[in-house]
Amino acid sequence: MGMIGGGPGAFIGEVHRKAASMDGGIELVAGAFDINPRKSKQMGKQLCLDSKRVYGNYRDMIERELKLPVGERVDFVSITTPNNWHFPIAVDFLQAGFHVMCEKPMTFDVAEARKLHKLVKQKRLVFGLMHNYTGYPMVKLARDMVRQGELGKIRKIVVQYPQGWLATALEQTGQQQASWRTDPKQSGGSGCMGDIGTHAENLAEYISGLKIKEICADLTTFVKGRKLEDDGNCLLRFNNGARGVLHASQISIGEENNLAIWIYGENKSLEWHQEQPNYLYVKEPDGPVQVWRRGNDYVGAKSPAAARATRLPSGHPEAFFEAFANVYRNFADTVRARITRTKPDPLALDFPAVGDGLRGMLFIETLLASTKSKHKWTRMKK
Amino acid sequence: MGMIGGGPGAFIGEVHRKAASMDGGIELVAGAFDINPRKSKQMGKQLCLDSKRVYGNYRDMIERELKLPVGERVDFVSITTPNNWHFPIAVDFLQAGFHVMCEKPMTFDVAEARKLHKLVKQKRLVFGLMHNYTGYPMVKLARDMVRQGELGKIRKIVVQYPQGWLATALEQTGQQQASWRTDPKQSGGSGCMGDIGTHAENLAEYISGLKIKEICADLTTFVKGRKLEDDGNCLLRFNNGARGVLHASQISIGEENNLAIWIYGENKSLEWHQEQPNYLYVKEPDGPVQVWRRGNDYVGAKSPAAARATRLPSGHPEAFFEAFANVYRNFADTVRARITRTKPDPLALDFPAVGDGLRGMLFIETLLASTKSKHKWTRMKK
Amino acid sequence: MGMIGGGPGAFIGEVHRKAASMDGGIELVAGAFDINPRKSKQMGKQLCLDSKRVYGNYRDMIERELKLPVGERVDFVSITTPNNWHFPIAVDFLQAGFHVMCEKPMTFDVAEARKLHKLVKQKRLVFGLMHNYTGYPMVKLARDMVRQGELGKIRKIVVQYPQGWLATALEQTGQQQASWRTDPKQSGGSGCMGDIGTHAENLAEYISGLKIKEICADLTTFVKGRKLEDDGNCLLRFNNGARGVLHASQISIGEENNLAIWIYGENKSLEWHQEQPNYLYVKEPDGPVQVWRRGNDYVGAKSPAAARATRLPSGHPEAFFEAFANVYRNFADTVRARITRTKPDPLALDFPAVGDGLRGMLFIETLLASTKSKHKWTRMKK
Amino acid sequence: MGMIGGGPGAFIGEVHRKAASMDGGIELVAGAFDINPRKSKQMGKQLCLDSKRVYGNYRDMIERELKLPVGERVDFVSITTPNNWHFPIAVDFLQAGFHVMCEKPMTFDVAEARKLHKLVKQKRLVFGLMHNYTGYPMVKLARDMVRQGELGKIRKIVVQYPQGWLATALEQTGQQQASWRTDPKQSGGSGCMGDIGTHAENLAEYISGLKIKEICADLTTFVKGRKLEDDGNCLLRFNNGARGVLHASQISIGEENNLAIWIYGENKSLEWHQEQPNYLYVKEPDGPVQVWRRGNDYVGAKSPAAARATRLPSGHPEAFFEAFANVYRNFADTVRARITRTKPDPLALDFPAVGDGLRGMLFIETLLASTKSKHKWTRMKK
Repeated sequence: MGMIGGGPGAFIGEVHRKAASMDGGIELVAGAFDINPRKSKQMGKQLCLDSKRVYGNYRDMIERELKLPVGERVDFVSITTPNNWHFPIAVDFLQAGFHVMCEKPMTFDVAEARKLHKLVKQKRLVFGLMHNYTGYPMVKLARDMVRQGELGKIRKIVVQYPQGWLATALEQTGQQQASWRTDPKQSGGSGCMGDIGTHAENLAEYISGLKIKEICADLTTFVKGRKLEDDGNCLLRFNNGARGVLHASQISIGEENNLAIWIYGENKSLEWHQEQPNYLYVKEPDGPVQVWRRGNDYVGAKSPAAARATRLPSGHPEAFFEAFANVYRNFADTVRARITRTKPDPLALDFPAVGDGLRGMLFIETLLASTKSKHKWTRMKK
Repeated sequence: MGMIGGGPGAFIGEVHRKAASMDGGIELVAGAFDINPRKSKQMGKQLCLDSKRVYGNYRDMIERELKLPVGERVDFVSITTPNNWHFPIAVDFLQAGFHVMCEKPMTFDVAEARKLHKLVKQKRLVFGLMHNYTGYPMVKLARDMVRQGELGKIRKIVVQYPQGWLATALEQTGQQQASWRTDPKQSGGSGCMGDIGTHAENLAEYISGLKIKEICADLTTFVKGRKLEDDGNCLLRFNNGARGVLHASQISIGEENNLAIWIYGENKSLEWHQEQPNYLYVKEPDGPVQVWRRGNDYVGAKSPAAARATRLPSGHPEAFFEAFANVYRNFADTVRARITRTKPDPLALDFPAVGDGLRGMLFIETLLASTKSKHKWTRMKK
Repeated sequence: MGMIGGGPGAFIGEVHRKAASMDGGIELVAGAFDINPRKSKQMGKQLCLDSKRVYGNYRDMIERELKLPVGERVDFVSITTPNNWHFPIAVDFLQAGFHVMCEKPMTFDVAEARKLHKLVKQKRLVFGLMHNYTGYPMVKLARDMVRQGELGKIRKIVVQYPQGWLATALEQTGQQQASWRTDPKQSGGSGCMGDIGTHAENLAEYISGLKIKEICADLTTFVKGRKLEDDGNCLLRFNNGARGVLHASQISIGEENNLAIWIYGENKSLEWHQEQPNYLYVKEPDGPVQVWRRGNDYVGAKSPAAARATRLPSGHPEAFFEAFANVYRNFADTVRARITRTKPDPLALDFPAVGDGLRGMLFIETLLASTKSKHKWTRMKK
Repeated sequence: MGMIGGGPGAFIGEVHRKAASMDGGIELVAGAFDINPRKSKQMGKQLCLDSKRVYGNYRDMIERELKLPVGERVDFVSITTPNNWHFPIAVDFLQAGFHVMCEKPMTFDVAEARKLHKLVKQKRLVFGLMHNYTGYPMVKLARDMVRQGELGKIRKIVVQYPQGWLATALEQTGQQQASWRTDPKQSGGSGCMGDIGTHAENLAEYISGLKIKEICADLTTFVKGRKLEDDGNCLLRFNNGARGVLHASQISIGEENNLAIWIYGENKSLEWHQEQPNYLYVKEPDGPVQVWRRGNDYVGAKSPAAARATRLPSGHPEAFFEAFANVYRNFADTVRARITRTKPDPLALDFPAVGDGLRGMLFIETLLASTKSKHKWTRMKK
């Protein structure tokens, strides 16, 4: 594995490294960690990498890695740069024949996303997108319950992702995380919704197997001087007729990372909260609420995908890193199968990919169109 | 106190009686409990009332109570009939000079509501509307925190009221509660939103002190054969610019009576759940979440209204009946002050009244207009 | 119903009155509310009682009530005086032929309890003891699950009752509730354990159907100058071999009224918390935790006693007053059946009685002996 | 780092590896993973280790690692074998000059523990003991609050560790985890209490800074045919006069890994639950309950130790692995400082060590003596 981005002080790059290395099957051996070559070197040293494989920019990296014999060069790269760099870097590595894992949002806009989608399909390379929340075992259990028809036809989905850390103009204090997230040049046309609203969208489609068809959005910028919205609420209509509510926020004081979802079917309902990820609530019309707890045999019996995504016995809580690592493990197992020309475990194919990235960009595009529109419903393109 | 409605098998009439009698200051002495005189008599007997004051219909009741000397006749009546009867009964009692407590929704439509509003103002009588959820002490604490400026300017309100009991066509089994609630002739133009959505609206306006200005609604009937909507989602805009999400449902399996509200201000946020009503969560930008618990001195110090609405020490949970009783107590204290021509305790004036009822009817009217409209925003009339 | 005690400022007397009157089947018509006749009169007036039936002391009350024709005189009395008065008052009313409801602890010591037990049996009168926590519907559900063998043989019980309100020498500030509870002359030989530990003991024996056989206790007085213990911890052994832990406290800062119980059987386990009384947690070896919620059909199907103890639909929380009222209702239905010489509903017989009171006094006696003993186990007498 | 134990199928060895490698500062380079050399080799291969450094037994490992130049040989070893092997292996590595990290319980009995304690002090080597639960950030926050005097004098501690997985004779099915834990030859004189009760003891002493002085224990074996206790309850007295309750169980059906602690001081109280480790509840006499949440500035301001033990921002939950990794990181930083003869960060010294291991063995010894004794209190030796 090689990494682009994730230099000194970067939050998500470090998470990628820890998650990728968790199971011992992925080794970081090369990287272009920062556009400042000195900083890139510094990070490489800190990570005890061979200095020859720490690059000052990603083009050098491609060129020189390609000169290494197959088997020595990196099998795939992880892109953890600011959003505006995702697309060109991904394209170049794909063109050079490398598999790619990419942070979300996948690209800057829909046009890029469509191109990338096409390129991945052409090249027959593996492309993973880090929608990490779908890596939680209880999310996989939820999805399997839906697939097995436990809920019956889904009628309603409520999904939220409130945070509070941008309730003030934090970006004006120079805080790095706040700065690029609120800068249209680095983040694209959307702030809050691109950053976290897409996670909510992805989670809802992942678990339900449904597609959002129409959106009615109301995006707002509450903090003065901020250029991108920091709050967004929308009504949804899904392709099977289900109704939905999706709201996300970065100005909801006291909320930390409160992604949560409620899915209501004709027969049963589900509820899951990211901040207490080891529980899935299952509700029936006339019976007690069931609290399914990660790590138990009855969970694995229902959902092999959940069992596969579990490292610790019940009661020994797992959390954010492990969910992240689950995305990496499935992605890497798929890459490995592609390289060794073997058939991957079907469960390994369960990771967010270029199609999810395109959905995310379409979702943002539709939100931005809807929020400007006087019409109630804006159709989400395919 | 006299009662209209609340005959054998009625749910809410019995709740009114228990709540009204809780503090010993209100005595039920007369009633027209059912349009079937035999059933009315039966209920009167069950309640050990003087049979002379148990009436076969409410017009007899007015006529004959008026013949009793002031002081003996009922001071006020409680109307707990199906929705379509609220208006004519209220009007007649008000015209006859009686104070009135009325179940919600106040009337069948906005036109009636406006007439009633005008009549109450004209007659200078006390009119209470049973929005019982504002009777909870921790709701009053929340309101006082907002009033005292603790939250700063309110930016966002999320309020929900999901239930699941109408997820199937229960009304077709003859179940009484389901039947009238799903019948447009008895309930008016709205089902779920009129029944419980208005509680959510009232709660949001009560705590925040804001007014809903514009609504974008998506109402849906999921159960086949049902004539009124059983699910509704809407985006809100408040008069101070705050954004909102309100969703209610009667098809959300597993949800019981899950009214809950989140209010986000510039400085602090609040969270409250009706099913665990003794707790109010207060959140700050950089401090621990505070769980305020009913019945403590620090609660009363902040909110005399909450202290007044509390009967038991902390840890001895209070619940639905007590909240209901709090509405009755304040209403009755205000009636008593009016009768004795004394000045009521200012805290006694804190009960939902005819203005809230009009707001509720306007809210429903706007919802119904919005859900049919292609435009995103529908303005709520005043 | 008549009342002894419960004068101005008394907490528990007011709770008794509200609870007794909740269902309309019990009417307070007489009382000796305070040993100060003036205060007794004042309370009677406040309650709108016929002044002729408000007495200056309980002996007058017996004498004069007996002069009233049967049917007019009170059917039973409720004793809500400080602990030291429970016994003599109960004896005199029983001797005079009245049924009795008594606050707990039943008497001052075991000797009195045995006498009272014997007297009640002799007189064939109905005697209720206000162990109100067994009145909660979900406690009754728990008991029925045990009785139906769902748990299998019970192996372990953990029961706690921590409070924090006496963490400082509140009694030295003149606070009425604190004063008599910490005064050996009014409360007997035990403070915390007599006041609340006995509720924990009663709850454990009620749900499990087991009897405590041996106790190992460590009682402590933490607050300087206090004469009775304010904290107690003990190990228990039950008559079927089950082990137990019981701890109670009045110095556990931040705890309000946190009575809770965990019962572990060979097949299943149960968990219940008084402060959130509408939920019962049922746990199996290999299945999700079940959260049984009050007011649902599946609860009533399992436990008719729980259904009978329920006044509101699910999601409309019930709490402390209703549990209290459930004890009253069953007691009163049993009294009524005795008076009318009819057979009571078998479910009406489910209320704490003189036998529970004797158990409570034996429990306290054993605790006091154990805490002084160097031996590990002290046997609880029968 | 080298590892002894942790071969194919071992649970805790894998946890050690993941935790040690989490932060990139520790590399596993050698091991004797199984007493079966073939299995040891197999594990080494799986871990991609140099086969020359994968040993068939730990004595070979000592011999051959010592032949490597300082700087190439392992700096420390982790012992994750069954309990009975901890002592001899630790002794031999210490004698050979290696630093040691050891799973708990440290030794088979107190005699061994005393010898080891003495040896570590003599050799001036770093010895870590894997009491992983003290690695949680919120546990460190709790400890710092106590140290800073926030709670005042501690009066009472309740600590529990219920599990349910051994409610049946799982060891008779050949399940590996159950087999050695219930075998006196491998686990020593205690089952449940040695396995998990010691974690509860360690947690209580770690947070409170107090020492258990006297114990009254009731240990029980519920499952037929089992040789070691599977449930234990005890009363505690601490060196400052505080009272305590400690109960642990492996037959409490439905409990997973429910370690939890309540600490009551004269001024404030604390509550923490291992299964939801990101929250610490702080309670005051007259104020709202405070929910302190991991990863916030206000937590770090109070407790630099908690901040140091935190890898992710608030709302991104951390859990079991990270706590484990925190023990490793502090241990390794201390080893590194010892090797480089530099002064370690004082916060790095915060990891459980040989003194904790001795306390644990004394605790078990005292429990076993107490449970056989007829006397209430058994003194814990020093």
